[in-house]
Amino acid sequence: MPFSEKINALLESKGLKPGDRLVVEKRGVIYEGFLMPREDIERGDPDCLVIKLDSGYNVGVKIDDETNVEKLTGAVKLEKFDHFSSQPQNPNLPPVSIISTGGTISSRIDYFTGAVATLFSPEEVLQGVPELGEIIRIRSAEKLFNLYSEDLSPSNWCKMAEKAVEKLSEGDAGVLVLHGTDTMHYTSAALSFMIRDLSSPVVLVGAQRSSDRGSRDTDMNLICASILAARGDVGEVGICMHGQMDDSFCLYIRGTRVRKMHTSRRDAFRPINDLPIARIWPDGRMEYVNPSVRRGSTKPWSDAVFEDKVAIVKTYPGTPPLLIESLLDAGYRGIVLEGTGLGHVPTQPEDQRMSLLPTVSRGVEMGVVFAVTSQCLYGRTSSQVYRNAILLSEAGAIYLEDMLPEVAYVKLGWLLGHNYDVAKVKRLMASNIAGEISTRIRPDTFLI
Amino acid sequence: MPFSEKINALLESKGLKPGDRLVVEKRGVIYEGFLMPREDIERGDPDCLVIKLDSGYNVGVKIDDETNVEKLTGAVKLEKFDHFSSQPQNPNLPPVSIISTGGTISSRIDYFTGAVATLFSPEEVLQGVPELGEIIRIRSAEKLFNLYSEDLSPSNWCKMAEKAVEKLSEGDAGVLVLHGTDTMHYTSAALSFMIRDLSSPVVLVGAQRSSDRGSRDTDMNLICASILAARGDVGEVGICMHGQMDDSFCLYIRGTRVRKMHTSRRDAFRPINDLPIARIWPDGRMEYVNPSVRRGSTKPWSDAVFEDKVAIVKTYPGTPPLLIESLLDAGYRGIVLEGTGLGHVPTQPEDQRMSLLPTVSRGVEMGVVFAVTSQCLYGRTSSQVYRNAILLSEAGAIYLEDMLPEVAYVKLGWLLGHNYDVAKVKRLMASNIAGEISTRIRPDTFLI
Repeated sequence: MPFSEKINALLESKGLKPGDRLVVEKRGVIYEGFLMPREDIERGDPDCLVIKLDSGYNVGVKIDDETNVEKLTGAVKLEKFDHFSSQPQNPNLPPVSIISTGGTISSRIDYFTGAVATLFSPEEVLQGVPELGEIIRIRSAEKLFNLYSEDLSPSNWCKMAEKAVEKLSEGDAGVLVLHGTDTMHYTSAALSFMIRDLSSPVVLVGAQRSSDRGSRDTDMNLICASILAARGDVGEVGICMHGQMDDSFCLYIRGTRVRKMHTSRRDAFRPINDLPIARIWPDGRMEYVNPSVRRGSTKPWSDAVFEDKVAIVKTYPGTPPLLIESLLDAGYRGIVLEGTGLGHVPTQPEDQRMSLLPTVSRGVEMGVVFAVTSQCLYGRTSSQVYRNAILLSEAGAIYLEDMLPEVAYVKLGWLLGHNYDVAKVKRLMASNIAGEISTRIRPDTFLI
Repeated sequence: MPFSEKINALLESKGLKPGDRLVVEKRGVIYEGFLMPREDIERGDPDCLVIKLDSGYNVGVKIDDETNVEKLTGAVKLEKFDHFSSQPQNPNLPPVSIISTGGTISSRIDYFTGAVATLFSPEEVLQGVPELGEIIRIRSAEKLFNLYSEDLSPSNWCKMAEKAVEKLSEGDAGVLVLHGTDTMHYTSAALSFMIRDLSSPVVLVGAQRSSDRGSRDTDMNLICASILAARGDVGEVGICMHGQMDDSFCLYIRGTRVRKMHTSRRDAFRPINDLPIARIWPDGRMEYVNPSVRRGSTKPWSDAVFEDKVAIVKTYPGTPPLLIESLLDAGYRGIVLEGTGLGHVPTQPEDQRMSLLPTVSRGVEMGVVFAVTSQCLYGRTSSQVYRNAILLSEAGAIYLEDMLPEVAYVKLGWLLGHNYDVAKVKRLMASNIAGEISTRIRPDTFLI
């Protein structure tokens, strides 16, 4: 979609073309930088100019009667941008495909509601970050969905797994998955299980701040994710996001060990019970800090199945047994209990009607798999220390060591999606498949 | 309950009395220390000797045919123990009452199952930590319940609030509540709301390791909790537990801002979106690091009500709307949604049957209060940034700023326990009452 006629007239009158340097003044605020092109932007406000500031950030400015726009004649033009938009990509760089699924990383200000909506195209994201052209050869860029990540369903995970495998089998060095941050760690766990024999990085990357903000993290996250996808000696699914509040480095965190731990900080994604696989600096440096599956020559394949009749139930003082009863009545086949402490649920309360034990026993008899995790998040569960856990274990619930509740949910749905019998599902649930269980937790992984 | 006849005969034959130094050898393991008395121990194995090791830790050793017991004649006796058990308490020390509710801090090895059961009496805990006699005057010690904390119900919170108020109104400088760790942070939130006009510390304290283990934390946690209860210039409910892995200091953390973040570490309790109120060293030093309500002369009173028809529902990709439907059908009056990111739930998924929005709308029409928190735990929710949150908010759900999901559950049940109309409950939910909401989150409170 081109600029509006009004903007086209304005640009023509000022002699402005994409790549030119300009100054925009709007209600006392001055933006100086390079005019970004508009042709490839599918949607958004055609009355809006996008300016690449000298900080590297893009800012969108809606042009109205109180906005002054001036070209800075004699100034340098945006060379990198020219290079990216008009010259062919470097064929010697590693080929990487970009799969966009929606989220803030693909979004821009929605002037209609005043809030952020998922409207960016992958091309526009790339156009805003010309540095990528020096790291990877973008073999393909595809918008698979355009969904807020809280609106993704397990069926979307299956499509992502299939698409990533398709791209890798076409020869990509790695795949970037642009993704909303809310449930990115659920997806990273799903892809970790659904892509078998993986031997290249499948890198989920998102943004905690929208692209119009000075604190935006899109550029650096994409740059670091591209470095990892192109050159990282890693054959695992992971999440690449800011490692610290500032723009120092990004972390690549194993897909089954990562969790969004803050609603808004740029360094919200943290490893749980694990070190990050690698640190990546935007200047190209990488440091491996945790052993991982290395790159190899295995052919990845998609094992993308999911049983929808699986649920997470968080327990707490007063948990109504009816929450679980309603799932049993609806034919659910697997329930992840997010217990307290080492993996406990109300078992012997004063009012025995509030015990979850009879309900769990009934479910087990029906063939339902109950898997126990801890809402502490950090640390390992145990069915051996306290009597309530022994009772729950004897009732047939399985304990999942140091697996995260979210990962347990994804894994249980994936396993039940196969034609395994219950005993096999239970055995596989308690066995490590994609780094989700470890035999020992390093003490230096708590709250990092 | 005294020792068994067998043990009495053994002690008599060896000339052993409580306070004497002895060596016990059992299957190659040697325990040297002081014999602890048995008279005040209500339950437990009467064939078991409790020995205070030189590390200060107590160990229980079951005496069988392969156990050798020898008195160390000529050795010093346990003076502090003698002092504590036989001499009157120091009347000049601040009076403090101890309310025991169960948990590891009150437990000892249960030889019957081989696992830990809640069998200790408060007197026995105190007897094991004679240092308390130099910090506080124990005005009363009472076993209110003997429950694992995962077995506590909201009705137990009400009784704890009433008991704490009773003790404070009798003139205590502070109250110690011995508590299992699993749900200690739910209880601390409940007491924060249920005790009004509090102007003394109500200190919840527990143990992550049972008292028979070398790494036990009972002693230091009790010592630091006593220091805070006796002398802390704090008029708030809080949790006092280890601040670090080692025995350096304890933290006193506001009751509405604390969460058990690790299944087993001694420093598992951490402040969320807040600094701890104080650091306490076992040598008596205190450092206040966060402003709090100070001690005062207000008369605390108990506002101990709770509406049981309140629930927490954690949302995730694939959350079945039936989880919420089943609560609505059962007449639930309040539901805390533990959403993703800034406070989102599945709203506009590809399959609209998986949207939670119609269910929330139906519930709101029925007068049910929906309160939105984030499973990120750290950071603030917002109903203003993304469209899904705007839609959820427009449907009538309220956003709770930076309140923890567990605290929101407790607060919602407490508010609905009053005869307030829905509008008042919603208004109070979103207003700060006991430190559960702040206007600004310090950046240095993330993952501490």
